[in-house]
Amino acid sequence: MTATTETKIIKEVTAANAKYAASFTKGSLPLPPGRKFTVVTCMDARLDPAKALGLEEGDAHVIRNAGGRAKDALRSVIISQQLLGTEEVLVIHHTDCGMLTFKDEELHEIVKERFGNEEYHEFLSFPDLEKSVKDDVEFLRESKVIKSEIPISGWIYEVETGKIRPVKN
Amino acid sequence: MTATTETKIIKEVTAANAKYAASFTKGSLPLPPGRKFTVVTCMDARLDPAKALGLEEGDAHVIRNAGGRAKDALRSVIISQQLLGTEEVLVIHHTDCGMLTFKDEELHEIVKERFGNEEYHEFLSFPDLEKSVKDDVEFLRESKVIKSEIPISGWIYEVETGKIRPVKN
Repeated sequence: MTATTETKIIKEVTAANAKYAASFTKGSLPLPPGRKFTVVTCMDARLDPAKALGLEEGDAHVIRNAGGRAKDALRSVIISQQLLGTEEVLVIHHTDCGMLTFKDEELHEIVKERFGNEEYHEFLSFPDLEKSVKDDVEFLRESKVIKSEIPISGWIYEVETGKIRPVKN
Repeated sequence: MTATTETKIIKEVTAANAKYAASFTKGSLPLPPGRKFTVVTCMDARLDPAKALGLEEGDAHVIRNAGGRAKDALRSVIISQQLLGTEEVLVIHHTDCGMLTFKDEELHEIVKERFGNEEYHEFLSFPDLEKSVKDDVEFLRESKVIKSEIPISGWIYEVETGKIRPVKN
């Protein structure tokens, strides 16, 4: 199916985008993030990092993946820091995360059964939310390719309240 | 530095979050995305996928990394589809992307020089924007662990205009 095959989602998204573009005034922002920081967080649909953290277009890099795992974000954080000058990282996981609901081995079995694919993927699920944040902050602090002198903090976003709270390392 | 060490960014982000949380009304949304689709896009600071595509909290998974590369998003897309029921993917790269400005080998040299680290990271930079979108749509279509029957479309977001335009595969 090509991009021009108009699914319901494509119709809705392009209509919403036409409205956004009609009042767009941010066409001359520079490439490097103006507020010089990077957010590493989850892909979760309930999380809108820009709204929840007060980010305007041009402010910060936002890296998102299943769980907001730092290991998976490493390539992007290196590029953010070395080529685009960011100097702080916020790692934000969240309550009721899908990553708490399964074990890697279980998803491996599902994939094997549905696709007949034996290839093993590391899914980076976790059983403990606070610990996953601490682990990921630690992972970045100990990385030999991440700036060592910068603040890296860990946070939990509560999908029930919209609040973020710090996780101490 | 711990999360409680209040950097300027942390002060600003927690203040913005307190405002967001004060008028938060979306505390009971289900975990699976309501509109059942996944966006794979770039971490670029100028891009606000929720505003640009009309996403409300709870609508869609948003995966973001340097360049919006599908290979890097694969783990997350598998989780999105197999555990959380999404049935469509939009791959969105953008004009003036940082990934167009360097070659992997150049960044490897920078990292080696600054950190003395010989470890090679695949940075997934690209010299051609349209081709990178086509390649990533193709990568997902050909993957043996991605749903084969679903629409996967490719798009370019224009940071100059706020518009998205389709890229035909």
